[in-house]
Amino acid sequence: MSTARIGLDVLGGDRAPDAILDGAWMAVTATDGEAIPADRIVLYGDAQHIESSLTARGGNPGFTVVHAPEAIGMDEKPAQALRAKRHSSIVVGTHSVKTGDTGAFVSMGNTGAVVGAATLMLGTLAGVRRPGIAVTLNITGSPLTLLDMGANTVPKPEDLVAYGIMGSLLQRDCLGVPKPRVGLLNIGEEDSKGTEVLQTAHKLLHEAKLDFIGNVEGGDIFQGKSDVVVTDGFTGNVALKLMEGLSGFMLQLMMGELKDHAAGWGPEALKNVKRHIDYSEYGGALLLGVDGVVIIGHGRSDGHAVHNALKLAARALDSEVNASIVRGLESRTAPAAE
Amino acid sequence: MSTARIGLDVLGGDRAPDAILDGAWMAVTATDGEAIPADRIVLYGDAQHIESSLTARGGNPGFTVVHAPEAIGMDEKPAQALRAKRHSSIVVGTHSVKTGDTGAFVSMGNTGAVVGAATLMLGTLAGVRRPGIAVTLNITGSPLTLLDMGANTVPKPEDLVAYGIMGSLLQRDCLGVPKPRVGLLNIGEEDSKGTEVLQTAHKLLHEAKLDFIGNVEGGDIFQGKSDVVVTDGFTGNVALKLMEGLSGFMLQLMMGELKDHAAGWGPEALKNVKRHIDYSEYGGALLLGVDGVVIIGHGRSDGHAVHNALKLAARALDSEVNASIVRGLESRTAPAAE
Repeated sequence: MSTARIGLDVLGGDRAPDAILDGAWMAVTATDGEAIPADRIVLYGDAQHIESSLTARGGNPGFTVVHAPEAIGMDEKPAQALRAKRHSSIVVGTHSVKTGDTGAFVSMGNTGAVVGAATLMLGTLAGVRRPGIAVTLNITGSPLTLLDMGANTVPKPEDLVAYGIMGSLLQRDCLGVPKPRVGLLNIGEEDSKGTEVLQTAHKLLHEAKLDFIGNVEGGDIFQGKSDVVVTDGFTGNVALKLMEGLSGFMLQLMMGELKDHAAGWGPEALKNVKRHIDYSEYGGALLLGVDGVVIIGHGRSDGHAVHNALKLAARALDSEVNASIVRGLESRTAPAAE
Repeated sequence: MSTARIGLDVLGGDRAPDAILDGAWMAVTATDGEAIPADRIVLYGDAQHIESSLTARGGNPGFTVVHAPEAIGMDEKPAQALRAKRHSSIVVGTHSVKTGDTGAFVSMGNTGAVVGAATLMLGTLAGVRRPGIAVTLNITGSPLTLLDMGANTVPKPEDLVAYGIMGSLLQRDCLGVPKPRVGLLNIGEEDSKGTEVLQTAHKLLHEAKLDFIGNVEGGDIFQGKSDVVVTDGFTGNVALKLMEGLSGFMLQLMMGELKDHAAGWGPEALKNVKRHIDYSEYGGALLLGVDGVVIIGHGRSDGHAVHNALKLAARALDSEVNASIVRGLESRTAPAAE
């Protein structure tokens, strides 16, 4: 069990810095048995501003504060921003993982910049060619992990197999699913469906030691057929944004329908529906395959989402999921077959 | 203006033959100014069964009935089924378009079989390398056409340009949008995003004479940013099934929330929401680029959806959209630039 510290980007996300500090506070004061000691959390941002915010909240409960005053905007071009802003919270926070000062970095900031910094500065785990972004949703009441959601738009078949193994180990070690079932996102159930890359990946996934259930289609995501859905980063990214857009759109339509009838309970009903499709419930996306724990939350994250992201970071460190991944990739084995 | 006849597959779809005949009846008796004369509709299926069903409904109002008794099941392998069942409604109905006996074929049956029959038997229009499946949704209150939804999983950049032009002409000629805006589905707004195929397609779409608004992301589909969304058949198919799955899932969740509170108006409210994401509102998918009008409805289509599909077929014939497509592809011009 690792007790490495967790870095938190105070400057990343649409609601930074307040929502970020809210989340850190919630993590420290949580009563769910997963509270994180304040001295395990390192805050990256404008040190003076952080300290004065903490004072306004009643004093620093023990967070380490590291001065990294440059913010990389949500719309900045990642490569350029990383070169130009050496003192940004993203660069400094990722560097701390590199040196071992921390074990994890959590950011609600510019996804491309966080992925770029992690890939360049941390490198990949043994056996990983390209990292993948894993997003976990709570659609049917148990966690469903989809990957890759945009890091690797043109994967090789081997990458997709690695995503299947990494996703399974994430499920077992961090999400409590002992024998995850893995599906390959495709346009039909038959082995022969989809591109050549998918056909080869299908064959390799069958040969790997994991619970591969075969191809799953877009609609199967909502049927609880598998615990892990493997896809290329292009399709995954389109799918994720589509789900977000469609669910928001439908909630808005429902809101309109409920407005006149259900002022009392309508908003609560919609919140119940939303919970199933909100990926901040599991703390955001994990960049699997880099040598360190890197979590990228949604830009719109509130304190609750930041708290969940910190919990996910702690679980990933405590369970040493990266060590499992290295072993799993070497033996091509995921939990279901162990 | 063509007044070619419209073939209808009485054996295709989960609710065949009843829902199919319902739809034909609605088309004939419609009072929306778009009624279709019965003698313009040709029914393909078991002639004896069709005639007795028509008798039970008060007599044949003037439909032509063609005996094509073999049904291709929804789950049959298309290529195999087409070879084995030469007297299937799909083969015979498509053959009638080939001979000019009809101008259009409408089926709620096995999508792969309809696409396969049309591609093999009708061939493609001049300038089309690969047909594309165009689906039109009514998300934000005006028609949004997405293509390709699964006919061409590995398109060339040229194919995507053809989809932009064909989609625009469909919008203008059949859906009443005079100057459609075309977007390319991608994982970011910048020109440099996505695969090489998409980058080249982006450049070619800019050069073509149409209203190309650039890349659109998965979530933009619900923002009304464009009237046509161009994508490869793999991503399109995943996206379509995902939308269907997610919207059904959310409606089910909402139903659960409303149940105890809103027995009176809940179902009506959900119906209003559903209308925005139900592609049978525009009569199903049009296989654009084949030499003929071919419409593939959803397997679950009811009479209303079949009626809409027949209306779409009539509009496509009456407006001679295929002749516009040939001219448009030759000059690389879509309506917005005319």
